[in-house]
Amino acid sequence: MPAYEQDLQKILARLKRIEGQVRGVQRMVSEGQYCVDVLTQISSISRATEKVGLIILRDHIHGCVRESIAKDDAEKSIEELVGAVERFLRT
Amino acid sequence: MPAYEQDLQKILARLKRIEGQVRGVQRMVSEGQYCVDVLTQISSISRATEKVGLIILRDHIHGCVRESIAKDDAEKSIEELVGAVERFLRT
Amino acid sequence: MPAYEQDLQKILARLKRIEGQVRGVQRMVSEGQYCVDVLTQISSISRATEKVGLIILRDHIHGCVRESIAKDDAEKSIEELVGAVERFLRT
Amino acid sequence: MPAYEQDLQKILARLKRIEGQVRGVQRMVSEGQYCVDVLTQISSISRATEKVGLIILRDHIHGCVRESIAKDDAEKSIEELVGAVERFLRT
Repeated sequence: MPAYEQDLQKILARLKRIEGQVRGVQRMVSEGQYCVDVLTQISSISRATEKVGLIILRDHIHGCVRESIAKDDAEKSIEELVGAVERFLRT
Repeated sequence: MPAYEQDLQKILARLKRIEGQVRGVQRMVSEGQYCVDVLTQISSISRATEKVGLIILRDHIHGCVRESIAKDDAEKSIEELVGAVERFLRT
Repeated sequence: MPAYEQDLQKILARLKRIEGQVRGVQRMVSEGQYCVDVLTQISSISRATEKVGLIILRDHIHGCVRESIAKDDAEKSIEELVGAVERFLRT
Repeated sequence: MPAYEQDLQKILARLKRIEGQVRGVQRMVSEGQYCVDVLTQISSISRATEKVGLIILRDHIHGCVRESIAKDDAEKSIEELVGAVERFLRT
């Protein structure tokens, strides 16, 4: 059972809403709506997506990372975590 | 007709793929897949979303902004553009 | 004369402040201050830096890009602009 | 002694280089160099700054967070960590 299990319903609800937003942008674009309005929606999707990522990240640290540290087997788990943050920051 | 009309098919194809990715993450989460794998997918959605934004931004500048400048009516259009970039950067 | 000339004093003042912040972080680190406080300062530098970028970007669009469009020679200038935004977004 | 002690020299060297870049941009701007070249440098500073943040973040997790988990006193430390990532992502 993954660490985000506790937030599963919240995460799924947010992903559902993001899916709706992505479909909404497809509609906006098909209808030829104004570029800047489309861009505003797209920024909002990107931000909402990262917010879901943060929920999972928090659960992951509270769950998996914490457990691996308690078991004194933290190296791989911490490197994975830093890698995940790095992919978000795109540095 | 909005400026992104010329890239409409490409934009819709990418949004369709992003929609698929968002549904994919819902499935991953429902199946309880590993947090870090979910996070990697989420970073990828956020980046793919911003890439679509960049296509629309480019078309917008080539189309709307250029036109407004040619018509010597650029103030509003440039402020809108800067606002759009600002929302992407979240500064 | 570059387009940001009009905001030169503001830009220089902000860069001076950022330089001070970077030196401040060096001091914090040398004194062994708490990681999370150092990280907060570092986020703030990154954001302040991008804010200066946005000022220059706005001036650039109002100045150089607008001029190049008025001269009907916009291709290169718009591609450069999109490239600059792309580097900020790191997509 | 903070967790980043082990990377102190590397961190200070990078911050020194970033300070030099910030001064470099001040010079570029004072000399009136081309907007897009200035913007490229500014993106590079923002990215280099976040890279330093990632080094400290990694050390912080390996050090402070790990220690707090081993001591079974992880709540505050994990929330702080998530907060730090959140400030970087600006979500």
